[in-house]
Amino acid sequence: MRTIQIYDTTLRDGTQGEGVSLSLEDKLLITRRLDEFGIDFIEGGYPLSNPKDAEYFHRVRDLKLNHAKVCAFGMTRRKGIAAKDDPGMQALVNSQAPVCTVVGKTSDFHVTEILRVSLQENLDMIRDSLSFLKSQGREVFYDAEHFFDGFAANPQYALSTIRTAAEAGASVIILCDTNGGTMPDAIAERARQALEVLAPLGAKVGIHCHNDCELAVANSLAAVDAGASQVQGTMNGFGERCGNADLITVIANLCLKKKYAALRQDSLEHLTELSRFVYEVANQHHRNNQPFVGQSAFAHKGGMHVHAIARATSSYEHIDPALVGNERRILVSELSGRSNIAALTAKHKLDDNRGLMDAILQRVCDLEAVGYQFEAAEASFDLLVRKVAGTFQPHFERLKYHVAVSAEGMSGEPVTEATVKVRVGETNLHEVAEGDGPVNALDAALRKALNGTFAGLQEMRLIDYKVRVVNGEAGTAAKIRVIIESTDGHDVWGTIGVSENIIEASWLALVDAIEYKLFKDEM
Amino acid sequence: MRTIQIYDTTLRDGTQGEGVSLSLEDKLLITRRLDEFGIDFIEGGYPLSNPKDAEYFHRVRDLKLNHAKVCAFGMTRRKGIAAKDDPGMQALVNSQAPVCTVVGKTSDFHVTEILRVSLQENLDMIRDSLSFLKSQGREVFYDAEHFFDGFAANPQYALSTIRTAAEAGASVIILCDTNGGTMPDAIAERARQALEVLAPLGAKVGIHCHNDCELAVANSLAAVDAGASQVQGTMNGFGERCGNADLITVIANLCLKKKYAALRQDSLEHLTELSRFVYEVANQHHRNNQPFVGQSAFAHKGGMHVHAIARATSSYEHIDPALVGNERRILVSELSGRSNIAALTAKHKLDDNRGLMDAILQRVCDLEAVGYQFEAAEASFDLLVRKVAGTFQPHFERLKYHVAVSAEGMSGEPVTEATVKVRVGETNLHEVAEGDGPVNALDAALRKALNGTFAGLQEMRLIDYKVRVVNGEAGTAAKIRVIIESTDGHDVWGTIGVSENIIEASWLALVDAIEYKLFKDEM
Repeated sequence: MRTIQIYDTTLRDGTQGEGVSLSLEDKLLITRRLDEFGIDFIEGGYPLSNPKDAEYFHRVRDLKLNHAKVCAFGMTRRKGIAAKDDPGMQALVNSQAPVCTVVGKTSDFHVTEILRVSLQENLDMIRDSLSFLKSQGREVFYDAEHFFDGFAANPQYALSTIRTAAEAGASVIILCDTNGGTMPDAIAERARQALEVLAPLGAKVGIHCHNDCELAVANSLAAVDAGASQVQGTMNGFGERCGNADLITVIANLCLKKKYAALRQDSLEHLTELSRFVYEVANQHHRNNQPFVGQSAFAHKGGMHVHAIARATSSYEHIDPALVGNERRILVSELSGRSNIAALTAKHKLDDNRGLMDAILQRVCDLEAVGYQFEAAEASFDLLVRKVAGTFQPHFERLKYHVAVSAEGMSGEPVTEATVKVRVGETNLHEVAEGDGPVNALDAALRKALNGTFAGLQEMRLIDYKVRVVNGEAGTAAKIRVIIESTDGHDVWGTIGVSENIIEASWLALVDAIEYKLFKDEM
Repeated sequence: MRTIQIYDTTLRDGTQGEGVSLSLEDKLLITRRLDEFGIDFIEGGYPLSNPKDAEYFHRVRDLKLNHAKVCAFGMTRRKGIAAKDDPGMQALVNSQAPVCTVVGKTSDFHVTEILRVSLQENLDMIRDSLSFLKSQGREVFYDAEHFFDGFAANPQYALSTIRTAAEAGASVIILCDTNGGTMPDAIAERARQALEVLAPLGAKVGIHCHNDCELAVANSLAAVDAGASQVQGTMNGFGERCGNADLITVIANLCLKKKYAALRQDSLEHLTELSRFVYEVANQHHRNNQPFVGQSAFAHKGGMHVHAIARATSSYEHIDPALVGNERRILVSELSGRSNIAALTAKHKLDDNRGLMDAILQRVCDLEAVGYQFEAAEASFDLLVRKVAGTFQPHFERLKYHVAVSAEGMSGEPVTEATVKVRVGETNLHEVAEGDGPVNALDAALRKALNGTFAGLQEMRLIDYKVRVVNGEAGTAAKIRVIIESTDGHDVWGTIGVSENIIEASWLALVDAIEYKLFKDEM
């Protein structure tokens, strides 16, 4: 059983995708999660291209990753300059990343027409760059850009570029289908020819595909079958144009369908969780019909199929969804719903109360119909269970709130003030606070009112705040879904609020966050 | 050059997709468009399953299609009944569709465990059903359900089912990867073996794939390369679980990459239009990164790529987007260089002013560093260019705004009021309005103030409103990025605002939306 290395470039090539943008904190969060999942290599960025990427390599060292090696991306040195004097090479060295991945030109057309250097100079640029990084003690990977197109046009030159890279010390040569236009049979054939050249030099072959023909996954698998031992791609297929190969699908296919070894034994069961985590951090919509991990990937709608599934789940499922941490869903079936609820309410010990479980299910369905979604808001779900079960006793009652934002002049700073009046027991508390924005001000006023009674709130803080318009078609009058993530240093919990009014939606999520904390502290 | 038949089942298998639902009128609209496009076979529905599908076959005859043959879908007759007495067979006959597509069992497991009939009875059901429909003067296609899984388990029995179908008069036997779990090499191998059995009987082979491993397109192509001459799929890959093979991509690959003949000479240039039409009729979101036809399919963001595209479009495009009726788009972001700016500002005619272009790029980088992102906000970018170039003259000035949201009691509805004071020329305008939320109220008050002076604003409306927290780590004090999409019926444009305060961010995006409209109307 051959072992395949998984190389993730979500943080670099993935951010080339339209609408994808990750802050430094986002990048570090994803890095930690990819490492926990068992990814072998994490390409963190292109340190020369912008200060955020350079800073990433500084900050990532504090994460003390368990398994993954962090890779810095760069290009071969510029023409007519020594590698050691090239700013790109210096940025790679300064990144202190243990692996440097350098991209260079394979296609004679690109060398002479785009880069505008001689064919020999390009070979020199590859050799000098890789030798220099190797001399600095780095492991070096070489991305052969446009390998397949270059090979089609001039096979001899294409092979000479990768031979040069291997001779200069690259341990893996990654064949890139940069434009995403190559068919699987050509990928396999050319990968085999590359391997014939590289294997005697002790270099491995990797594959990097784009999805312009919806073949990035098929092409990655074809290359692996032809002998490649590293696959590059991104989480959920984020990337320029039609995206990169979706590593989520590649990993599942490699392990479950092709029987290669990849990642750790227990990685696969966290695949769905990982995919959804990355969507959330990148604030991208989940793709419901995404293979293996999508919400609909094991959802059955046709009556005939649901009937067959009841006789044998394998009848209309190609794998057991639990293998990838996903779930079967029977659409329009109360029965399957009840088993979900049963699983989710296990800690409340309602298992034998079918009526209560049905009532909870009904409440979840009603709320989801108006835009709620409890996947990222388990604390709100927990409170919902208490409410339906009649065990919810609020710690405080809202009497009123008032938030005002105003700004003067063409570019005057906005000023925000919130007042909150709540009743705790027999006492009315009325407080006012300013904030950076309306939600921040509301949060400040509410805590000012409650902190005196509930000391535990002082250790609690909000760590994330997400807003999504549930029905974008109605313009600014659409429903707004707010999800807040809070922590008290021990736990992290998510709460949700939905309203046509973003302030009210935020208020609802804030109140749930505080109530959950107070219930938690009583247990 | 082999000709491949295209068989569309959007109206039947496509509607099994979660959230996909088509009215009778929708189905007729799509039918007409598929026919105009040149699709060979259109599966209209399953007449036994519901009255809407039965009515479709009645109504579709009035469309007088030019090229496409309409197909009615059904199952083999029930056990222990003559085909002529079977309600499903009767529904097929009554549909008057010229082609009947009948699905039957291939897998011995499904025959004995799900259908619960003997292996011989299943063969009889296939033979009787197809012979009967043939005797009624119909062309008959046979969908071999679970062909690939059935073949893996019991090749002899699987082949006997399709042999029976061919002997009974089916002109095309469609091999179905019903669960979507088969790999391309197995698809090719088993399709070849099926062809060996069927070719001597004069039957053709078709392929019907599902996308559970993200391989539906690759599998369809693999089957065609192995000799299949019909491909079944759906528009945009609609369908149960992860969807069916996306015919949009299959068609483009067959014609442009594999050089098979399919459809008419001029069909391909309408591919993008067709894809978007079906999304609109089905009221589904377009998939921006969809191969060939997506909005991002030929969008370039990286500065190095845009630079290369300016020298030769083929450098980072696998085909000319015009071949499929799509367009190239240049995006602007912190990853871009001067080439992106030059491409985007072409209409402002600044090409020879490098200093100005550098100033624009610098401004873009500065703003992106504080959370702006111009990819989805081309109108704000346009205004930015005017501002840096010194050609921006605002149509109105903000004197002040004030927004207040308040709510009373535990579950009182929030009340929102906004006042806006602006100066237009020498006149101060001061207006107040209520709204569903703060942004809605601000928008209403601002328009109330401006509508009298600028009549064109009355045709303008907001169609989408997106909020994202740029740096989620700082809790509610994080930067908020608001993107607003507006339309006036002719154009659609995006604008952006960023602030720590969501109200201010929304205000900035609103103001840009209005300014852009006013500049546009003056040109």
